[in-house]
Amino acid sequence: MIIQIAADCEEAQLDRIKSEVQAIGYEGTDIETQFGKYIIAIGKKQFDIRRIGSMEGIKDIHRVSDAYKLVSAKWKVGETKVKIGEDLFIGDGHFQMMAGPCSIESEEQIESTVKHLVNNGIKIMRGGVYKPRSSPYSFRGLGIEGLKLWYQTCREHGIKIVTEVMQVSQIEPMHDYIDIFQVGARNSQNFNLLDELGKVDKPILLKRGISGTMNELLQAAEYIFSNGNERIMLCERGIRTYEGAYRNTMDLNAIAMLKEKTHLPVVADPSHGIGVRRFVPQIALASVMAGADALIVEVHESPEKAFSDGQQTLSYREAEALYENVRKTIKLRGELV
Amino acid sequence: MIIQIAADCEEAQLDRIKSEVQAIGYEGTDIETQFGKYIIAIGKKQFDIRRIGSMEGIKDIHRVSDAYKLVSAKWKVGETKVKIGEDLFIGDGHFQMMAGPCSIESEEQIESTVKHLVNNGIKIMRGGVYKPRSSPYSFRGLGIEGLKLWYQTCREHGIKIVTEVMQVSQIEPMHDYIDIFQVGARNSQNFNLLDELGKVDKPILLKRGISGTMNELLQAAEYIFSNGNERIMLCERGIRTYEGAYRNTMDLNAIAMLKEKTHLPVVADPSHGIGVRRFVPQIALASVMAGADALIVEVHESPEKAFSDGQQTLSYREAEALYENVRKTIKLRGELV
Amino acid sequence: MIIQIAADCEEAQLDRIKSEVQAIGYEGTDIETQFGKYIIAIGKKQFDIRRIGSMEGIKDIHRVSDAYKLVSAKWKVGETKVKIGEDLFIGDGHFQMMAGPCSIESEEQIESTVKHLVNNGIKIMRGGVYKPRSSPYSFRGLGIEGLKLWYQTCREHGIKIVTEVMQVSQIEPMHDYIDIFQVGARNSQNFNLLDELGKVDKPILLKRGISGTMNELLQAAEYIFSNGNERIMLCERGIRTYEGAYRNTMDLNAIAMLKEKTHLPVVADPSHGIGVRRFVPQIALASVMAGADALIVEVHESPEKAFSDGQQTLSYREAEALYENVRKTIKLRGELV
Amino acid sequence: MIIQIAADCEEAQLDRIKSEVQAIGYEGTDIETQFGKYIIAIGKKQFDIRRIGSMEGIKDIHRVSDAYKLVSAKWKVGETKVKIGEDLFIGDGHFQMMAGPCSIESEEQIESTVKHLVNNGIKIMRGGVYKPRSSPYSFRGLGIEGLKLWYQTCREHGIKIVTEVMQVSQIEPMHDYIDIFQVGARNSQNFNLLDELGKVDKPILLKRGISGTMNELLQAAEYIFSNGNERIMLCERGIRTYEGAYRNTMDLNAIAMLKEKTHLPVVADPSHGIGVRRFVPQIALASVMAGADALIVEVHESPEKAFSDGQQTLSYREAEALYENVRKTIKLRGELV
Repeated sequence: MIIQIAADCEEAQLDRIKSEVQAIGYEGTDIETQFGKYIIAIGKKQFDIRRIGSMEGIKDIHRVSDAYKLVSAKWKVGETKVKIGEDLFIGDGHFQMMAGPCSIESEEQIESTVKHLVNNGIKIMRGGVYKPRSSPYSFRGLGIEGLKLWYQTCREHGIKIVTEVMQVSQIEPMHDYIDIFQVGARNSQNFNLLDELGKVDKPILLKRGISGTMNELLQAAEYIFSNGNERIMLCERGIRTYEGAYRNTMDLNAIAMLKEKTHLPVVADPSHGIGVRRFVPQIALASVMAGADALIVEVHESPEKAFSDGQQTLSYREAEALYENVRKTIKLRGELV
Repeated sequence: MIIQIAADCEEAQLDRIKSEVQAIGYEGTDIETQFGKYIIAIGKKQFDIRRIGSMEGIKDIHRVSDAYKLVSAKWKVGETKVKIGEDLFIGDGHFQMMAGPCSIESEEQIESTVKHLVNNGIKIMRGGVYKPRSSPYSFRGLGIEGLKLWYQTCREHGIKIVTEVMQVSQIEPMHDYIDIFQVGARNSQNFNLLDELGKVDKPILLKRGISGTMNELLQAAEYIFSNGNERIMLCERGIRTYEGAYRNTMDLNAIAMLKEKTHLPVVADPSHGIGVRRFVPQIALASVMAGADALIVEVHESPEKAFSDGQQTLSYREAEALYENVRKTIKLRGELV
Repeated sequence: MIIQIAADCEEAQLDRIKSEVQAIGYEGTDIETQFGKYIIAIGKKQFDIRRIGSMEGIKDIHRVSDAYKLVSAKWKVGETKVKIGEDLFIGDGHFQMMAGPCSIESEEQIESTVKHLVNNGIKIMRGGVYKPRSSPYSFRGLGIEGLKLWYQTCREHGIKIVTEVMQVSQIEPMHDYIDIFQVGARNSQNFNLLDELGKVDKPILLKRGISGTMNELLQAAEYIFSNGNERIMLCERGIRTYEGAYRNTMDLNAIAMLKEKTHLPVVADPSHGIGVRRFVPQIALASVMAGADALIVEVHESPEKAFSDGQQTLSYREAEALYENVRKTIKLRGELV
Repeated sequence: MIIQIAADCEEAQLDRIKSEVQAIGYEGTDIETQFGKYIIAIGKKQFDIRRIGSMEGIKDIHRVSDAYKLVSAKWKVGETKVKIGEDLFIGDGHFQMMAGPCSIESEEQIESTVKHLVNNGIKIMRGGVYKPRSSPYSFRGLGIEGLKLWYQTCREHGIKIVTEVMQVSQIEPMHDYIDIFQVGARNSQNFNLLDELGKVDKPILLKRGISGTMNELLQAAEYIFSNGNERIMLCERGIRTYEGAYRNTMDLNAIAMLKEKTHLPVVADPSHGIGVRRFVPQIALASVMAGADALIVEVHESPEKAFSDGQQTLSYREAEALYENVRKTIKLRGELV
């Protein structure tokens, strides 16, 4: 059960509400986000919801039987629009493309990419400065210095930054240089990281785990939300299956279903979703038709020279065709019956 | 290696070709289809391809290193257009929708569905008269009598029939009453059935196995082709994964990849691909964008009363919206850069 | 609900039972096997089970809510002992090993293998004469002539034969030359084949599908049982997972669980279960500890020269060590607390 | 390539070795562990290994083409014996059982469990004080205070502690109160955590990821080793598959294969591996036969009252039977041919 607390709820009213929750044998958790206050009350006993619902200081009350509560679509009216920057939103009809390399490699690469994005009207740049790598002997990213360099160029051109944070201790140093914290697939259930990202005033792009379920993804988002941060986007990036013909199996079912289960925006990552460059555009467009609110795509001036993920990275020319096709597809999507 | 035999190749020339194949230490398999003659030569030794390529009686010769040969896109120029009926094709730019119930249930149901299809310009009706059911105690279809009934109504209205054949002994009795033999997911590697369908002069709709790989699907198609039948369509219908939130996980990657690996048309079955009625339209449209040449969709006048698969079956109203949206999406697909 | 019909039930009594089943709104299916008569009554209405249970002509009556009925352990007292031959049983404490090559290749191979088995006290020989192969260009077995050759040598030495049947039309010609019909993983849901094997008076070794569930395997067995054949053994042979380090992932959980869910014997196939020769013995012994009633193992005089599956086939020397270790493990299993 | 540095290698010799590595175009990484010094040299160029191998200051040199190096069995003679405490080892013939509750719940529970362990000769107690939970509203463990309580009782009775560490900041506070740091399945690729655990002088129990591959697990171990900690144990705890009949699918293939691929000990966790109490013993014994060097099992005085995982937790009585059976099985394993 979600109890939405009214903005003008007084301390004494709040105490009475909590007492009542206890009285009916429920366990209450206090939640305070950027946008509101809630009590999540968990329990199994039958009781008359009006008994609590009519109390002073309550804005609304909702039964949500899902394992996740605040991220559920069952209580919130409409879809969530996540603010990325001034006049820049994702969700609730606001579609964005994010593009950039797998790894931030050099100043030249940053400048080249930013120019490509600006030329094509793309407002958010992706890239990694901390790279989770299977092997300890692989390139692990340029780190915070790379991020600062990247930040400078992006700020000059009004480009926002989305990049992966891998551990709690990176949050603070990264904070001022990024616009969206990305949680990678391998950290999708790194609960301590999720807790801390819930206390941050930046949007979060939360990737589905390598074999994450719908429920696990939504509960991971609940960690962030319940710690105070409502600005969450979920990202489908392909799952691990028996099929070895592609790196991952993009799960478009997930996009269609998430759009119903949650009010949060859903982002598609076709680059990881199939992992083969020449098929990324089809999967990107398919993701749009399945309902995605945004796309995140790997792009590089010379994919074959990229430090990582070159095999799934689009060249600028390929990306430009994709941007145009995505825009046409978004337009069509708005015209469907 | 595929050796395409010239139409005017004489017996003696053919013998010399076969001798030469043997001479280089390769094992040759003779193939004769509705449309041509081929020798598939399998071996590992190095040899000068011109030695065979220049022989009389040969139209062309192709190295194909895939596990499948004749269904590979590597040798055939262009995509295959499968003829379903007079002026009715699937593949190579010809897009079709197939719709109908999971099971053929009654004369009333047939008539209602046919009317729905005719009204909406749909030319192929799906339906099952032999139903593979997990339990022996479930409804297993109306059988051949149901098929005859169905056939009659369809013929009157110019509707083609696609329906599942489950075993070799059904091929002959079904033959005159169907237009496309469907091979179900559970029979995707029923090699005896595939062999026999290779000898039949009707198109085949071959579904991917429940956990079939790309290679297995293409090799299953090779069984049909190598027995003489080139009119094959492959069907993605969702695979089995760890995710229990939907019946299957529709694998759009497969559609994008099959379109490159094979010259055969690729059909999408979003009904089984997600298995939840209200998400079928999104997955259908996504499949179109991923490159599908056709759609096969479950439709019923009253889905909740359907003998089987009701939970994934569209009502007429839902289907009509889908048909219209698919047509718009196909149009857009033709306009992409 | 399973209604066990008494051996001396008269026609008129049976009719009254059927009428009563109908009267309570249940759908009844008549089953007659080698060992008994049953009515499977399916329905959802509440009724007093004593109303039927007390009727004349009934031996016993059991509520079984599983999707499978007659193969469930819920109604039958004790485990099923499948008779393979005079004094040769599998199940209910009777453990057997089955060994032999993947494919029957030649008379010499047969004789060598039979000698190996006789020397080691193994009484059942496995081997394939009809081979399901992913590619139509692979060796597909020696067929019925190979089987007759094999049969002759086995009969001379008192060795029983287990071999795969791939389609209905093979059942009759194979029948007199085999002792156990094996249903392969790809045919695990070939329902027509299962139906027909239910009418045969030979034991059936039913393999789990490549990604078959517990429920599917048990319902597949139900097809055989409900058509009249109670002599069924289930076989775990590894499932398809994301892990590519081995051919399949042997699922020992399945063995432990099947031993509880069904009264049928459970056979382990470690050769396919891991698909790597040098690990087959450990998996074989693990399978015994998980509860297997029998083992089926691939053995060849020269595994590296085998026509198929050489990489997972034991040499005679490796097999002999395994037989001895299995016997010790079986002995220990009997002594556990 | 692994270059083992001799114990008496002088600074100047080491510099010459590094120069030589660079000279052949390889990238060298310096490793220093509790037990030795190594240089991991990664590159692709051909060179004469003797050129480096004969240099002074080198103990030995090994080509290891796997993605993981120092954890590979290809270079190290014999199996690794991990020291847990005075006269307490795991690996290289030293078998141990670890048992205890999923969560540490109370002083009474600790005392009861310790008594149970002491009575049964079990020397390592498992339990969680930091619990990774899918939902933020679930019980997340007693934390460091719980650990201190637990530690006290264990020290009094000579019981060692294995417990999960979830993030870098917990390492230091936990360090003095634990004997083995456990890395949970969800953190199996939390590379920052692995890095830091490589700098710790305590053994690590590293669990396979929820859908982790052999390669990923071994490379995760390589993170720990290459940061300086050789005392690593790998743990198979079941993987995620399509089969929903059990919580996870215990992968015994992994145990057999890991025993060959790495010199590190392999631990089996049958409790999570199947997730159903009454099947845990069979899977535990099967794991021993597959080659496990240790078992970790969930045990609770009253499983049905456990805060978490009760459904897969053994009662004391069940556990006692298991301990005895495991001992018999270990004895048999030593007697196999």
